[in-house]
Amino acid sequence: MSDVLRPTPPRALSGFPEWLPRQKLVEESCIAAIRGVFSSYGYTPIETPAVELTEVLAAKGVDHKEIYSLVRLHAEGEEALKRELSLHFDLTVPFARYVAQHQNDLVFPFKRSQIQKVWRGERPAQGRFREFYQADADVICRDNLPACYEAEMLEMIALIFARLPAGPVRVRLNHRQILDGFYGSLGLDEPLRARALLEVDKLEKIGPEVVARILRDDLALEEPRVGKILSFAATKAPIGDLAAALKHLAPENALFLAGAAHLDAIAAMVPPQPGTKFEWCGGISRGLNYYTGVIFETALENAPELGSVCSGGRYDKLASNFAAAAALPGVGLSIGLTRLLSHLFQISGFLDGKSATTTEILMAVPETKDEEATGISTAEQHEKANRRRHALVLLAQEMRQLGCKVEVFHPAKLKKQLTYADRKGIAHVVIPNENANSYEWKDMRSGEQRTLDRTGLLEACARLNP
Amino acid sequence: MSDVLRPTPPRALSGFPEWLPRQKLVEESCIAAIRGVFSSYGYTPIETPAVELTEVLAAKGVDHKEIYSLVRLHAEGEEALKRELSLHFDLTVPFARYVAQHQNDLVFPFKRSQIQKVWRGERPAQGRFREFYQADADVICRDNLPACYEAEMLEMIALIFARLPAGPVRVRLNHRQILDGFYGSLGLDEPLRARALLEVDKLEKIGPEVVARILRDDLALEEPRVGKILSFAATKAPIGDLAAALKHLAPENALFLAGAAHLDAIAAMVPPQPGTKFEWCGGISRGLNYYTGVIFETALENAPELGSVCSGGRYDKLASNFAAAAALPGVGLSIGLTRLLSHLFQISGFLDGKSATTTEILMAVPETKDEEATGISTAEQHEKANRRRHALVLLAQEMRQLGCKVEVFHPAKLKKQLTYADRKGIAHVVIPNENANSYEWKDMRSGEQRTLDRTGLLEACARLNP
Repeated sequence: MSDVLRPTPPRALSGFPEWLPRQKLVEESCIAAIRGVFSSYGYTPIETPAVELTEVLAAKGVDHKEIYSLVRLHAEGEEALKRELSLHFDLTVPFARYVAQHQNDLVFPFKRSQIQKVWRGERPAQGRFREFYQADADVICRDNLPACYEAEMLEMIALIFARLPAGPVRVRLNHRQILDGFYGSLGLDEPLRARALLEVDKLEKIGPEVVARILRDDLALEEPRVGKILSFAATKAPIGDLAAALKHLAPENALFLAGAAHLDAIAAMVPPQPGTKFEWCGGISRGLNYYTGVIFETALENAPELGSVCSGGRYDKLASNFAAAAALPGVGLSIGLTRLLSHLFQISGFLDGKSATTTEILMAVPETKDEEATGISTAEQHEKANRRRHALVLLAQEMRQLGCKVEVFHPAKLKKQLTYADRKGIAHVVIPNENANSYEWKDMRSGEQRTLDRTGLLEACARLNP
Repeated sequence: MSDVLRPTPPRALSGFPEWLPRQKLVEESCIAAIRGVFSSYGYTPIETPAVELTEVLAAKGVDHKEIYSLVRLHAEGEEALKRELSLHFDLTVPFARYVAQHQNDLVFPFKRSQIQKVWRGERPAQGRFREFYQADADVICRDNLPACYEAEMLEMIALIFARLPAGPVRVRLNHRQILDGFYGSLGLDEPLRARALLEVDKLEKIGPEVVARILRDDLALEEPRVGKILSFAATKAPIGDLAAALKHLAPENALFLAGAAHLDAIAAMVPPQPGTKFEWCGGISRGLNYYTGVIFETALENAPELGSVCSGGRYDKLASNFAAAAALPGVGLSIGLTRLLSHLFQISGFLDGKSATTTEILMAVPETKDEEATGISTAEQHEKANRRRHALVLLAQEMRQLGCKVEVFHPAKLKKQLTYADRKGIAHVVIPNENANSYEWKDMRSGEQRTLDRTGLLEACARLNP
């Protein structure tokens, strides 16, 4: 510790959210709910390194500005300019790489869940994060991906949001074939089509006037095509009978009609999901260009302005990019957990009454009388306090074996210990009586207090976690 | 998807380990065991961003070469040279920053657990990782940190390793005051002392001859001091009566004796821990220089050559560095989970029989007879298959509500579905019979098969997760 101590007031880093304990406990419970649904459908957890070869991440038309590369802090010369390693910006590309790399060790259909942080070098703004959690479930098949797995994604979205504290959701779907067919019927081919889709994807953020201007000025599209695109993007319809309902939009286009029929087939496989609405929307196009089939976004009915909190779709060629010859089509969903939580934490009253700990019982440790009076402990008092705490530590171990979460405090004034339990939201405090053969069991919410012997205490513990 | 597809054979990135599903499930179960012990002692989970201000990380004598900084991939000019943001290299420094930053929102003693990846820009070598998991528990107090929290760390280490599949461990302890006292009694003051400690810390890696040469040649120490240092570093003793046992090593040094007495006091507070040995060792010094009191390392008795898999100690000034005026002493432990797992995975037979999924039941979906024969399905067959799968999807939902983890396959040959279950390690397969009112319940391990009606099937499910 030879350095001069220089107190640096720490500051929050914009775009890198950090939760207080009671917020983190909400995040943990949301992760547990999501993980529970994923695993109940057989999506096995995997994890990929946060770091990938830059060439893996930058392979497919990604917005490169968003990629963070790694450089050692004191790298010099050529090393300082190398950008070989980067942080992943989503979990789909690393997963596709994982499947391609390990395909001989995996069993297909390979169903995996992956809940990890991702990083994007964005300019920070409200609701935009540079480090955030995604919770993904994907399935990748060899050769063919049956539509039932696309339906399973929609089923899981409904179940997950039924368990998250965010209210009902609306899932808006589209299909790349519908988009390609419609834009194709207007005479827009690649790369113009992809550019137009990227702009239309910003509709909710920047509004139809701005999108129309960009389509006219930057993409050199003219009326009536700009009007048709905007009108198409605003069109919504219930899924289930899209083939008939949308036919008039591009009647001659086989690709368009095949996409609509495919969405109908998926809808037919999803059991009814109370609390979740599904609808087709011509404006859904997803920015990432690896999607090839169904695409979807999920908005909270109570906060549609938040944007999508769960998106995904089908990608027939992404994993194949990394694996010569093999066809590895996939479909997946990705929940924007950090965006969702930052929204919930801003709701007035949401965190009220939420505990800052998982501890159920605080074992109070009495201060010896002399310590209390003088603040100084003699060797003998120290020895006595030690013996007493030792006995309480052993008792706490027994309580933990009954499934309880127990903190043992240090010798201190009882009032201080009760304040601690109260501020943390610990429900019960055990106060050993002076003779050490009986205990006060205090319920911190009701204030109620009972005297228990050791057997009674352990019985009370067993009842907490039956 | 306008880019030309170019299959890139993916390659593993040295230093960035990645697990296959059955390995990841072992990692998950280890994390659950560690988290279980942490939370049963009241250590509340928190998480800090992977990214910190470089000035926070580099503040205290860290080996800067190991820090990875972030640069946007296509940053140019000045931005490309900026090193404002970096990835954390441990969880202790970010935690200390967190406590200092949020101290007005936290309740002290603040006990937290944190299980996250950390990154180090090391040259990759056997057992050295550039991205790896640490599982930490720390407590930070205001003003005073009672020794009982140091004892609690040792108690938790013993309990955690009793639950991990790594066999018995040996915890070797030392105390910074013992080190400072002993080295001081040899006339070694800062910064020479810190440099000598850093070299002695490498003893197990590079051997006593090399360390002796470095002490002589690079630090200009002469005999008999070099000999005394090496002999001290090799000295071991049981804790509990160190003050007496070590007195002769630096009889005049008050700091040395205070450190020994402090370790004895800690030892007196730890209940007996079967399976875990605690001993003092003069050679334990820990590389990171923020420690001020007890320090410890944990080695597997079955694989001491692996080095420490759980280290930590007491740091009285780390958090205070970030908070003007406040005294925030802390103590903590850190488990090197990735190092531990990479060792376990190399043990022959360790992964044998371990499942690649958490799925308990595979719901088989029969292919219709005509599909089997022709490989082509008509619209009518498609419709029929759809209806059947729909009914099975609903049945699976009921089974999940009973707590089961159930995968529904897609219509395919039964043999293919059984092979899938077998290869993934799924214990049970449900095969709907043609009339759809009865089901075969097949136990994949015993091969035993029973016919059940719907009620019997749901009863069997309920028995799986009582």
